[in-house]
Amino acid sequence: MEKVHSLTVLGTIGERKAIELIIKQLDKMRQMPVPFGDDVSAWDIGNGNLAVLKTDMLVDKTDVPPDMDLWQAARKAVVMNISDFAAKGVKPNAILVSLGLPRKLVEKDIEQIGKGLNAGAREYDAYVIGGDTGEASDLVISISLFGMAKKDELMLRSGAKPGDLVAVTGFFGKTSAGLRILVNNLKVPKEIQRILVESVLMPYARLKQGLALSQTRAVTASIDSSDGLAWSLHEIAKASNVGFIIERLPISNEAKTFAEIANLDPVELTLYGGEEYELVLAVEPSLWSKAERAVEKTGGNLLRMGRVTAEKTLLLEMNGKKRTIEPKGYEHFKT
Amino acid sequence: MEKVHSLTVLGTIGERKAIELIIKQLDKMRQMPVPFGDDVSAWDIGNGNLAVLKTDMLVDKTDVPPDMDLWQAARKAVVMNISDFAAKGVKPNAILVSLGLPRKLVEKDIEQIGKGLNAGAREYDAYVIGGDTGEASDLVISISLFGMAKKDELMLRSGAKPGDLVAVTGFFGKTSAGLRILVNNLKVPKEIQRILVESVLMPYARLKQGLALSQTRAVTASIDSSDGLAWSLHEIAKASNVGFIIERLPISNEAKTFAEIANLDPVELTLYGGEEYELVLAVEPSLWSKAERAVEKTGGNLLRMGRVTAEKTLLLEMNGKKRTIEPKGYEHFKT
Repeated sequence: MEKVHSLTVLGTIGERKAIELIIKQLDKMRQMPVPFGDDVSAWDIGNGNLAVLKTDMLVDKTDVPPDMDLWQAARKAVVMNISDFAAKGVKPNAILVSLGLPRKLVEKDIEQIGKGLNAGAREYDAYVIGGDTGEASDLVISISLFGMAKKDELMLRSGAKPGDLVAVTGFFGKTSAGLRILVNNLKVPKEIQRILVESVLMPYARLKQGLALSQTRAVTASIDSSDGLAWSLHEIAKASNVGFIIERLPISNEAKTFAEIANLDPVELTLYGGEEYELVLAVEPSLWSKAERAVEKTGGNLLRMGRVTAEKTLLLEMNGKKRTIEPKGYEHFKT
Repeated sequence: MEKVHSLTVLGTIGERKAIELIIKQLDKMRQMPVPFGDDVSAWDIGNGNLAVLKTDMLVDKTDVPPDMDLWQAARKAVVMNISDFAAKGVKPNAILVSLGLPRKLVEKDIEQIGKGLNAGAREYDAYVIGGDTGEASDLVISISLFGMAKKDELMLRSGAKPGDLVAVTGFFGKTSAGLRILVNNLKVPKEIQRILVESVLMPYARLKQGLALSQTRAVTASIDSSDGLAWSLHEIAKASNVGFIIERLPISNEAKTFAEIANLDPVELTLYGGEEYELVLAVEPSLWSKAERAVEKTGGNLLRMGRVTAEKTLLLEMNGKKRTIEPKGYEHFKT
């Protein structure tokens, strides 16, 4: 049971509580290679090798924003799962798909779903090798991933140490802005609008970066930012029993412009977004250059934003001002 | 894309057609160890070993009959997936669960689901090691299984040869009768009613039998009977390019009694049921005794019912009468 959407409520219980309740009922396997609460699960197949597994479900009514078509939704279902593999440094090999299909769908819809699934898989060099379908009220696309990893190369949430550097693989705030445009039907200059909306409709997983980073052994903790930057930081803090001081926020230029136009706080847009698939990392300082070079070789960037602290608080210190980073994030599109 | 429920229609398309449409859009991996259309998927991990994967989704509105509680539904979601591993002769190790939860659920409901998932897993010596939750209109329990197998021990649908013996691991018709009792609220003598209803609410996967059989190398084709006996025979026939003559039908005594009371044809109940998790097998004749002993050692029975033919017809020959076995099966509970 891994991801938690902070602000979604499931009736009166909440998703987080629901996951806790389920885990409580389970007999625990001894010596789990990856604990409950991390982004993937694993099975020890011997000789230091793990079979790595992941499942997550896209449900149209909560995970598909306005204007996202079926091809994009199916592709996104794959990408959001692969992003978790990316964060752990694991290459996805095989994908299985369990589909819940509403009766209203027609042949062309099913074709679009098939094409989107395939596109998401092939982008990351994986294959859809099986699955099943059934009828459901919502469109439900449940993805299962399988891959292999060396036990000691897996990047968990739990290894960040005081003094480690905090970094991300890209700039934030675009999806947060893009979602506001889609949901509230806002108008901003055409070219910026295109970039912001595109960031929502066509997310990319940082798989190359994650795989390269896991080879460097420089990363002490890792997570993706699908529930927002602030949420991801809190998850690492909790799993690693540390805190953070963030000195530089990776705000994207388009998000900055959007914040001005829409009269919003760009810091809020950056911290409390979601559906963003950058990696959020703690890096061993002596190996920083190695990690940076590895990411740059993939065509990406490693952006340093702060450091890990022994004190278990999450602080943003910018321009001489301090503010607390709250444990909140991504909201679903429709509630 | 594996299982097909013959009679469920997905709007105008049909589940079978939907699966075909999806598969058509996929780039095919070269040298798939298990082809599309069989009950599990696999990834070659070298040295003759396979990682075996399976996913299938239980949706309450189509897969949960009246009177089945949440604990039973969650357990069933696990058991129906394990049954496919049983049919292939693969031990399930790890289970991941992706849950779509309706808002109306309360804490106690979630606990029952957790307990049911755990019960299903532990019955077969597997563990739930991860998963995720989200909100959905229906209760959706999507299960992913992982296990390991020797490539040459996997029992596929496709190896039946003319002259092979056809066998099953148990008697049929109970679930078919039980469902009729539950859906139509029929009354039959108490003790029989209990057995018939129980067969629906508490299905068991023939895992021990499947694992024992795969060791004998006696089985040339195998499938479970979750979509009904007739449907399973047709699937083996199609995959193996053969036909069958069935001389003895494994009708359970309770189903026989129920058929008399309800004025139904016991042959229909036996052939065209579903939600039954026996194994349907083709067995190499020279290894029959070996297979039989292996199953008996597990406490089960191997019931011979006919033979494989080169002619691609499915015939029932009993008491000097011939009738055709139709490719039809299991109907969902609510449509």
